[in-house]
Order: sequence, then C-alpha cells, then structure tokens
Amino acid sequence: MSDRSERSLLPNGLRDGLAPEAAHESAVLERLMRHFHSYGYDRIDPPLVEFEENLLDGVGTVMGPHTFRLMDPVSQRMMGVRADITPQVARIAATRLRKQPRPLRLAYAGSVLRVRGTQLRPERQFRQAGCELIGVDSPAADAEVIELAAVALRDVGIARLSVDICLPTLVPTICDMFGLDRTQVFAALDQKDASAVAALGGEAGALLMALLRASGPAKTALEKLAKIELPEPLAIERTRLEAVVARLQKAVPDLALTVDPVEHKGFEYQQGLSFTLFARGVRGELGRGGRYSLAGKGDPATGFTVYLDTILRAAPPPAPERKVFLPTSTPDGEGARLRREGWVAVSALSEAGDDAAEARRVGCTDILRDGRIEPLKN
Amino acid sequence: MSDRSERSLLPNGLRDGLAPEAAHESAVLERLMRHFHSYGYDRIDPPLVEFEENLLDGVGTVMGPHTFRLMDPVSQRMMGVRADITPQVARIAATRLRKQPRPLRLAYAGSVLRVRGTQLRPERQFRQAGCELIGVDSPAADAEVIELAAVALRDVGIARLSVDICLPTLVPTICDMFGLDRTQVFAALDQKDASAVAALGGEAGALLMALLRASGPAKTALEKLAKIELPEPLAIERTRLEAVVARLQKAVPDLALTVDPVEHKGFEYQQGLSFTLFARGVRGELGRGGRYSLAGKGDPATGFTVYLDTILRAAPPPAPERKVFLPTSTPDGEGARLRREGWVAVSALSEAGDDAAEARRVGCTDILRDGRIEPLKN
Repeated sequence: MSDRSERSLLPNGLRDGLAPEAAHESAVLERLMRHFHSYGYDRIDPPLVEFEENLLDGVGTVMGPHTFRLMDPVSQRMMGVRADITPQVARIAATRLRKQPRPLRLAYAGSVLRVRGTQLRPERQFRQAGCELIGVDSPAADAEVIELAAVALRDVGIARLSVDICLPTLVPTICDMFGLDRTQVFAALDQKDASAVAALGGEAGALLMALLRASGPAKTALEKLAKIELPEPLAIERTRLEAVVARLQKAVPDLALTVDPVEHKGFEYQQGLSFTLFARGVRGELGRGGRYSLAGKGDPATGFTVYLDTILRAAPPPAPERKVFLPTSTPDGEGARLRREGWVAVSALSEAGDDAAEARRVGCTDILRDGRIEPLKN
Repeated sequence: MSDRSERSLLPNGLRDGLAPEAAHESAVLERLMRHFHSYGYDRIDPPLVEFEENLLDGVGTVMGPHTFRLMDPVSQRMMGVRADITPQVARIAATRLRKQPRPLRLAYAGSVLRVRGTQLRPERQFRQAGCELIGVDSPAADAEVIELAAVALRDVGIARLSVDICLPTLVPTICDMFGLDRTQVFAALDQKDASAVAALGGEAGALLMALLRASGPAKTALEKLAKIELPEPLAIERTRLEAVVARLQKAVPDLALTVDPVEHKGFEYQQGLSFTLFARGVRGELGRGGRYSLAGKGDPATGFTVYLDTILRAAPPPAPERKVFLPTSTPDGEGARLRREGWVAVSALSEAGDDAAEARRVGCTDILRDGRIEPLKN
C-alpha cells in the first residue's frame, strides 16, 4: 500500500494518533486535568452526542453550522455530535447542577467533531479541555480562570505563554451608543485600518482610534486606556480590566499579559472580559475563554477551553522511553517486579537465538540478564 | 425542572458523568492504561469517525447494525461513528504499522457509540480500553494478554475477578465434521439443554455431551477434557488450552480460571482461544478477548477489550476527597504551595462573614487559618 493510499485511509481532517504521540497527548491532558482539579474544579463528562436542540442552545448557537447531525432511532429526534463541550457544561450547570452551591467549578476534557476544518485548524476532530466557573461575576473569578489556565499550560511545558485580554462588548456598546453600523466598524478594526477607523469621524471615531491604539503589553495598554475619557458602561469594563490585570500580576508575576480592547473575533457568546492563550512563535491559539451567561437561569459565568493539538505543537516532545526485554529464561515474578518499579518490560514470546538482537528488533533499549538490567549497544 | 424532565435531557442510553464518578472513571482508565504500557503496549488513538467501509471491514463486519452513519460533506462518502475500537486497531496494524516488527503490541482507550442499547448493556455510549498483540500465534501470546487483563483489573480493585476461557471454533468444527446444522446445535448448547444435545445422537452427540459436561473450574475441566477422545483439529485446540492454563497458573497463581469449551456467543470474529472477564456477583462482563486474524495480511492476533461501565460497577467507589478552603486573607503563593503538595485548594472569591461556614457551603473539608490546615467540624 502506498503512502498516498495510507493518507486516504481516513477522511480529511481526521487522523490516527500513533506512538509515542498518542500516549503523550493523553499524559499532557491528564496533567492539565490534575491542575484543574487542584483548584477545586470537578470533572464532568457529557456524552459525545445529545439532542440537537440542547446542544445548539444558548452558548451553543454559534456551533450550528459546524455540527454533524444524527437521527436517533429510539426517540425519533435529531441528535448532534458535539462540536464544542462548553455548551454541554453550561447545560449541566443550568439543569442537573442548578441546586449546587455557587461558585460552581467544573472541568471537562474530551474530543469534539466538526463538519469542516478551517484554515487555522484543518483538524475536524480534536481534544478540548477546560474549566467553567459559574455563579460569580467578579474580577476575582476572571483572574482565577486566567491564572489556572496559565499555571496549567506552563506546567506542561509551554515556555513562551502569552495571554491576550480583550473586552469584546466594548465596540458593540460604542456602536449602539453612537448609532454606528457594527459590521462596518468591525471591518475597519479587524484590518487594524487606522484611516478607516478615523474616517468614522466624530466622537465615536476618536474613541475607537484611541482604543485601537491602546493595545499592547498590559502595563502600557492600561496607561493609555486610563487616559481615554470613557462613557459610563465602558469605564466599568476598564475598571474590571484593571482589577483583573492587577490580580494576575500578583498571582503569576512573570506571565506575559497583553491587552487588545477592540478584539472580538470568535467571542460571539462572550459578554465581558475575555482572553486568548498563545505560545509565542506557535501557529494557532492554545485556547480561549471569557465571561458569558448561562442560558435559562442567567447565572454569570466565565471559563476557558484549551486545544490539545496546539498545545502539543507548543510543548516539548515526549522524552525517549526505555524498555527492557525479558528473555524466555526470565524467572517468574521478575517482570511483575520491574513493572512495579516503573519499567516498561516486554516479554519474549518465543526462544530467540540471539536475545540482544531480538530485543533491539522489537525496540527495546535494555535487556534483563542474570537479574540485572543492561543497556543494549546499538 | 422536575426529575422527569432532567432524565429526558439526554437521549436514552446516554448520560452525563458527574462528580465524583467522572473523575473516578478517568483515573481508573489511566491506571489500566499504565499497566498496558508497562507490558510494552503502545497507545494508539484512532478517530471517533472514519469511512464506513473501513470501520465495518474484517473484524468490524459484525458491528454494521450497531453503527451510526454520517455523510462526510468533504469527501461525499459515508462515515460511521465507531461502535467498537478493535476494528480500528486492526486497520492501523494492517496498514500504517504493517512494517513495524512483530510482535506488535498496541493499546487503546476511548468512547464508542451504538445505535441501540441491549438488555445487558442499556448504555449506548461507553468507554472501552484494550490491548492487541499482533503477529504471534502461540500459547505464550494468549497467556500474556489474559495475564495483562487480569493484573490490570485486579489493580483497579476488582476483587473477585474470574476469567472464563472458551474455544469458540470447537463446536462449528464438530458441526462441519459430522454434517450437523450449526443453528440447531448452538440452540441446544446455549440452553445447556443436555437432553437436546443427547438427542443429536451418534458420535457427534456423545462428543458434544462430553464437552458440555467438561465446563467448570480450569483444573477439573481440563481433567475431564483430557479423557475425551478428540479428533485431530480439536485435540490441537485442547493442547493449546492446556498450555495457556498452565502458563496462567504460574504467572497469576490465585486467579480464578474457568473453562467452558462450547461457549461461543459474542465471539463472532474470534478464530481460536477466547475468554470473558467477570467479577463474580456483578452484572455484565468486564471485558472479553481472543484470537483473530488481521484482515488483508492475515497476521495472527489476539487481544482483549474491557468496558469501563462494568469495571466501575465492580470496583470500589472513589475515596472521599479532602478540599481545603483558602479565605481571601490567604497570602499570595500559599495556594500554589498547597496544590504542589497535592491538596485540592479552593480560593474564596469574595469576603465571607464566616469563612468556616462558607467553606462548608462550597463543600470543603478543611480550612487554611494562619498558615495551618484545620479540619472543619460538621
């Protein structure tokens, strides 16, 4: 079979995880989950498919075009394969866990499936992990989830982590206050097109120009923002931003923090302070999060999702592994003892003329001889 | 919202994993995978969906009626959502890993989805984990996978583990040799209906009666089997069975082993020595496995799959967890220190009038006071 036909074994955007990457992905994921757990986030595990109407409700609305549908022969109702886990967590928080005391801290990890890949993420299946902090609308909550994401990502080896904070409600609020067309304003801002922004003219144009120029490293961005005269609702958001940045600078002093007040792309359901997690020099984002409202009860909530594919591109590769070969002459119980000590121990299944050659052939680095482990020469 | 409507939140047979069960399931799964890894089984991770024709090829043929289908808008071809992971592992071994040295040891873990639940397993989504040992057709290989399954299951707390070994090709071979109708013979054997088996008459009836009576604990079953005069192909299978049992009795001396030579249900694709893993007193099987052939190249293979839902019913429940509450007065860095020490530490997000009451309200068992952890009284 040629390499070409091997590639066509799977639909576009789907792949087989092989050794050692699959084990590495799973180890990184469990390490992230241990951090989430250590902050008191309880793991929940929603199913891969559920009724379409629930999956695409509330924060899930934007996932409609990305979601595969299935007919459920039992209920005769349409189900969707999850394209995002956050809407499922929101559903669980608003229903099964509605009586649990707030703040409610939930963590999750799992695979999602999407109808089509994008240019930035051609994968149609990838793993997400994340946390949701529900029931508290305070800068302390915003700061906790950013701190947790940063601490967890750095622990799995993301060296050049950068958190970009934005206020995705700022520009829409300005548009509404001054009667501007959102689409037009977003287009000008997205291209960082200062002349188009300036051309909007008047008080709104000047305000948007000032906000556009106030993006950058947190310290200088906050200084520039502080000098802008902001109408009341925007000033409240700025105060929150200042409080969150101050908390993060105390909790994770060496974290690279930037602020981009006018960023909004991909924050369709966010209703307040949001953020993107990057590794400098690595394509794509590691994750993102921000403030939203639970459907129904309207609990304030914030949280984040990280993407394992990007994390693995940014994290160091797995350390090479040692494996010891156990010839057929190995006494009973030796394998069990070595495995308890943490060794990967591969048992010979038949006599080999040359045990060392056989050990190397099956990928072992060491061999057990007379009760002692000896490294194999290449 | 009533409990009734909560139940109808999800399609039948699908469920939300909540705390503490979801974290427990994942911990048990990772512990199993560590055992698989320690025997040299490399983790692979096939996708949730793939082309229907590959998924339902070879060992996957029997999963056809259980598999949800999706149209892939990219390739315009039909895909299936996996209902079993073993066929995917077989595909990978026969294609991407066809040039890897044999024996090839592969491990996997993941969720599968099925169109309908069964009476024994009403769940339509559940987690599988398993191992495949490819390229070796020897009793040593059969014994290794059974030993590994047993060691791993006992380590996650399955106390009353029992392995039932069967030879699913025995009865079909007899039917073919003596020109008997398989359906009729299976029906009689499945009901353990001795009179119906005896009524088959002649040499075949006597042989089948003897085999039916030879089921039970391995030691006595092997003694009874040894006394039966078996035609050549069946005698070879018996010799293999004796060799595998002897190896297991040495490797895992206290393992409860039974033999049921005429068992065949659910071993549709197995072509030799097979087995079922039970916990005595627990509904459903923990897992199963056996010998098969890889499609295409025809590599001999054996392996097993375990089901996390049954394992969790049979394993001890998770130990109650301690969580320490950090009041807002907690100095910077204390939370990080406690979490490094292994504590689950929940930070207060706002001043509480009574920290201890607040700690209890959010489910903490301990509180940090003046740098010391104090258990909370109830």
